[in-house]
Amino acid sequence: MSDGDTGEEIMAATYRALCANGYADLTMQDIADESGKSKAALHYHYDSKHDLLCAFLEYLYDGFVERTSGVAGENAYERLVAFVDAVLDRPDDDSEQFGTAILEIRAQAPYEPGFRERLTEFDEYLAGELEAILEAGVEDGTFDPEMDAEDTARFLVTVLTGAATERVTSGRSVECTRRMLTEYVETHLLTDRTREVET
Amino acid sequence: MSDGDTGEEIMAATYRALCANGYADLTMQDIADESGKSKAALHYHYDSKHDLLCAFLEYLYDGFVERTSGVAGENAYERLVAFVDAVLDRPDDDSEQFGTAILEIRAQAPYEPGFRERLTEFDEYLAGELEAILEAGVEDGTFDPEMDAEDTARFLVTVLTGAATERVTSGRSVECTRRMLTEYVETHLLTDRTREVET
Repeated sequence: MSDGDTGEEIMAATYRALCANGYADLTMQDIADESGKSKAALHYHYDSKHDLLCAFLEYLYDGFVERTSGVAGENAYERLVAFVDAVLDRPDDDSEQFGTAILEIRAQAPYEPGFRERLTEFDEYLAGELEAILEAGVEDGTFDPEMDAEDTARFLVTVLTGAATERVTSGRSVECTRRMLTEYVETHLLTDRTREVET
Repeated sequence: MSDGDTGEEIMAATYRALCANGYADLTMQDIADESGKSKAALHYHYDSKHDLLCAFLEYLYDGFVERTSGVAGENAYERLVAFVDAVLDRPDDDSEQFGTAILEIRAQAPYEPGFRERLTEFDEYLAGELEAILEAGVEDGTFDPEMDAEDTARFLVTVLTGAATERVTSGRSVECTRRMLTEYVETHLLTDRTREVET
């Protein structure tokens, strides 16, 4: 078995262990149990739980980029809606437990610079992708050229972060957020010409 | 000393202990140390750390309502901006540590129904106040009557929640959110007539 396969197996086991135990109570033993490996084998690859979780955040980041980059659409408007949907819709059945574990990890960012660095990478990727779609839309006449693409992208990231937090805290579905975001894009970002065609 | 004073002292000590230790590592002993009371004295008032923290969330809720309800303004637009400012601007010096502790507690909501119940109360209060301001603004001609006040209020709560989460995760300031929210209100919610006068 190559190191790549072992790494992939440990990451998948970490995912399952986080869904089952949450972050606060997670131990290397929990991950070892899920992976069918010994704790010593895990420590051979990762010095500490902190190191393993940093690697896990990078693994999540890679998967997230793969899932969301290059979303399809006839124009920038459709790509923006598809991108927002890809972020709001989690691909797995354990999304509630996993979203909770991720919020627990987010709350540790001020104590764990390694977590903060990797979580910030997520937000930067999101903001960068959204900004690129918005700028392409200004370029091709889909979006209002008066818009500040950078600030607007940041605002959209804040909304997506808020929706993820609320899902954990109160169990609220993201449907109201999706509806309001779509309306925001349609009435706020589209040019009049595009609005007539698209909505 | 009345029970009211003791309760108030324990709540203030819990605040300081959360700022100093975060939620995950918080013990009854930490709170006792901050309050100058014995652990036994705390247990006389609260059966468990969970009970004490539920009481603490209620105490925070009362303070939050007191600080944000009845914000002043000439019209609904000014009241909306003042309300958003009151939520974004925390009144204390320990706001970073405290914001972190609150996010840790938010992430425990799925495991602790007592936390979820009280945190949902916060969100319901926020949504209710915002909806009332929006409806008053439609009534007095400040806001666009086409707006769905309930959905818009929920959307604003999501944005405020996202800003609080980002502040913890990446240490980002809330200024971009404040700017974009103000712009959203001005270009999205105001009637044309009000926009000319106010902006």
